[in-house]
Amino acid sequence: MSRWLERPAHVTDNPGDLPKGFKAAGVAAGIKPSGGMDVGLLVCSEPGCVSATRFTRSGILAAPVVLTQQRARQDAIRVVIVNSGNANAATGNQGFEQAARTQGAAAMAGGVREDQVAVASTGVIGVQLDAGDVIRGIVRARGDLREYGHGDFSEAIQTTDQFAKEVEVDVALSAGTVRLTAQAKGAGMISPNFATMLCFVQTDAALDATFADLLLGLCVERSFDRISVDGQLSTNDTVIFQASGASGVTLEADSEDATKFGEALDWALRKLALDIVRDGEGSKRIGRVVVRGGSNEVVERAARAIANSPLVKAALHGGDPNWGRIVQAVGGALTDTSPLAVDVFIESVQVCAAGMAIKFDQDALNAAVSGDEVEYDVVLPGSGAETEVFFSDLSHEYVTINADYTT
Amino acid sequence: MSRWLERPAHVTDNPGDLPKGFKAAGVAAGIKPSGGMDVGLLVCSEPGCVSATRFTRSGILAAPVVLTQQRARQDAIRVVIVNSGNANAATGNQGFEQAARTQGAAAMAGGVREDQVAVASTGVIGVQLDAGDVIRGIVRARGDLREYGHGDFSEAIQTTDQFAKEVEVDVALSAGTVRLTAQAKGAGMISPNFATMLCFVQTDAALDATFADLLLGLCVERSFDRISVDGQLSTNDTVIFQASGASGVTLEADSEDATKFGEALDWALRKLALDIVRDGEGSKRIGRVVVRGGSNEVVERAARAIANSPLVKAALHGGDPNWGRIVQAVGGALTDTSPLAVDVFIESVQVCAAGMAIKFDQDALNAAVSGDEVEYDVVLPGSGAETEVFFSDLSHEYVTINADYTT
Repeated sequence: MSRWLERPAHVTDNPGDLPKGFKAAGVAAGIKPSGGMDVGLLVCSEPGCVSATRFTRSGILAAPVVLTQQRARQDAIRVVIVNSGNANAATGNQGFEQAARTQGAAAMAGGVREDQVAVASTGVIGVQLDAGDVIRGIVRARGDLREYGHGDFSEAIQTTDQFAKEVEVDVALSAGTVRLTAQAKGAGMISPNFATMLCFVQTDAALDATFADLLLGLCVERSFDRISVDGQLSTNDTVIFQASGASGVTLEADSEDATKFGEALDWALRKLALDIVRDGEGSKRIGRVVVRGGSNEVVERAARAIANSPLVKAALHGGDPNWGRIVQAVGGALTDTSPLAVDVFIESVQVCAAGMAIKFDQDALNAAVSGDEVEYDVVLPGSGAETEVFFSDLSHEYVTINADYTT
Repeated sequence: MSRWLERPAHVTDNPGDLPKGFKAAGVAAGIKPSGGMDVGLLVCSEPGCVSATRFTRSGILAAPVVLTQQRARQDAIRVVIVNSGNANAATGNQGFEQAARTQGAAAMAGGVREDQVAVASTGVIGVQLDAGDVIRGIVRARGDLREYGHGDFSEAIQTTDQFAKEVEVDVALSAGTVRLTAQAKGAGMISPNFATMLCFVQTDAALDATFADLLLGLCVERSFDRISVDGQLSTNDTVIFQASGASGVTLEADSEDATKFGEALDWALRKLALDIVRDGEGSKRIGRVVVRGGSNEVVERAARAIANSPLVKAALHGGDPNWGRIVQAVGGALTDTSPLAVDVFIESVQVCAAGMAIKFDQDALNAAVSGDEVEYDVVLPGSGAETEVFFSDLSHEYVTINADYTT
């Protein structure tokens, strides 16, 4: 699907059921004005299910994020209840109460304790959510829970997404084969710090919660932390990783199987992260910027500036090899550093050496930037630091989608 | 023109000549493919002319900026030579030499020393400028220098601007009336740190260079530093203030006249800054965000995040009162501060109290955000700090303009 992503040989695409121990459902509960599916329920039947979580760092946290952080055991989540169509953010105590009611109803539906339930929401900010709608959805979803319910679950968590973002793979380990599935959503308000709005990952491998947390942290850093649609940090970003252990295949933290499973999870989250960028609101093309230099802080700042520059993004959209905007973005990010010796390559064609335009084959470059994926390489002074950011373009459709969202 | 701007009573609009001592011209020298005017020449005949300057802080400085910083006396600039159509940025030593040739030719044309000439450029980055073109323009412009040549000069410094940004006023002081004129350009790549790409200001008041520098610094902080079209810092931003002294009216640094002149300059630069936002590429509406709180650094960060948020800008464009995006932008700028008690007002209608949605008159708000100017007020915890940023919306035209600029 992308030249920037290679599926490990021991990971096999295999559409089918959720990993052993999991069931899911998605229903339409009337939260979305469109009447589309808007409540997703995911239940693990294994009492020993372990989990790990990651959340947005926004100063404005949505009620379900606060609730899940405060009232759920991060290492033992068995049930995930999600609604789309309303973010339940900036809704104060009332919003928190609605999230708590939702958590309670989902605990009943899943036959688990309340602190084993994670609540997530996505949609418009600043409108009170009626938990009654979600609870009616939970009741219906409970009767519809199936081993292959993740398709509906995936649909129910979407908002402006144009396509489902899913992983369904088998992972061959020396101790046996485990299954790994994941569902993500997120097309706008995708941020530089922590990107996807929602992502849920399930496996039937058995691993302890500390290792699950370590693994998730590493993989999120290399996936959702490395993408930007519009540089906008969401109030609701939530990633939940659950391992039922029902396969009977145990992963010891330092084993070769653990490494192989880690590779599979890394691939899966990077695939979903790229899917999110590809589905960036109105996106037509994806850019990848790789910045090398002498300081982690400097390469990160430069890469973010390029990935979030509306000028760079609009040029990417237009298939315009206007590399001056790369230079401009770098200069704007690294103020008071002039003269800054920067090299710029677009699709391996060098266009700028030590801050200065050089001759290149314009026709070859024009052709290179007309593809679906465009790679930018920027080299700053020094060495030892390197980072990458994937980003979507800035299109007319982004403006259309975002100029008229609530009304 | 804007409710956010009030012209002081002692400042009178009066279209007419440049201040005494100044002449200007603008010609088409073949740098712009359109054949439009692209070389502007401004000359002060007074040997005692004093000046003050401000430049972009980008890490990538255009050749004319470096040249003017290194080879011109910042306090004694008499001649300004500007070309549009080519920024002469990322052009290395060759670009520097072309800027130096331009400076030399303009010195000849103005009958001044080279270190009394400022050079400025605006346009595409990363293409070598042929000084020969500019010099041919200088030769023609020299023969066309007129007291009322600032209209052509203003046209010659524009790129994607949709309208001229000019001030032509008389300033009544107790010691007599002085004249103040200014020309600015800048519609895209307008930055959070230092905004306008180019602005030239002339007066026939007599003031010393130290006071001129102080005055310009204060006024730039309240004008071009407070606007954002797209958060993109330019490689070429240049502001040059010149005082010929030819009116015979002297401004002592601490006098009442000095204050009154300062008020006039402040008004003039704020007017031009607002013009630049109003002419933001594809702009239809202007937003003003005022943020209050307990720390200068925090209110500044929040205000910039709102002004540069593509979601906020797209909502402004669509006349969509989606205030959740204001909250989201604040939260994204102030990570790890949750719970953050933020109040939000749009056109004085409070929509959010202490981080929580409150009831408001939706019809009144819809009507309020449909105007040409929309004001957002954000109150963070604490008091004593306050800032404002003016910003343009994000439109289809911005995408159209920027998706296909070089090709």
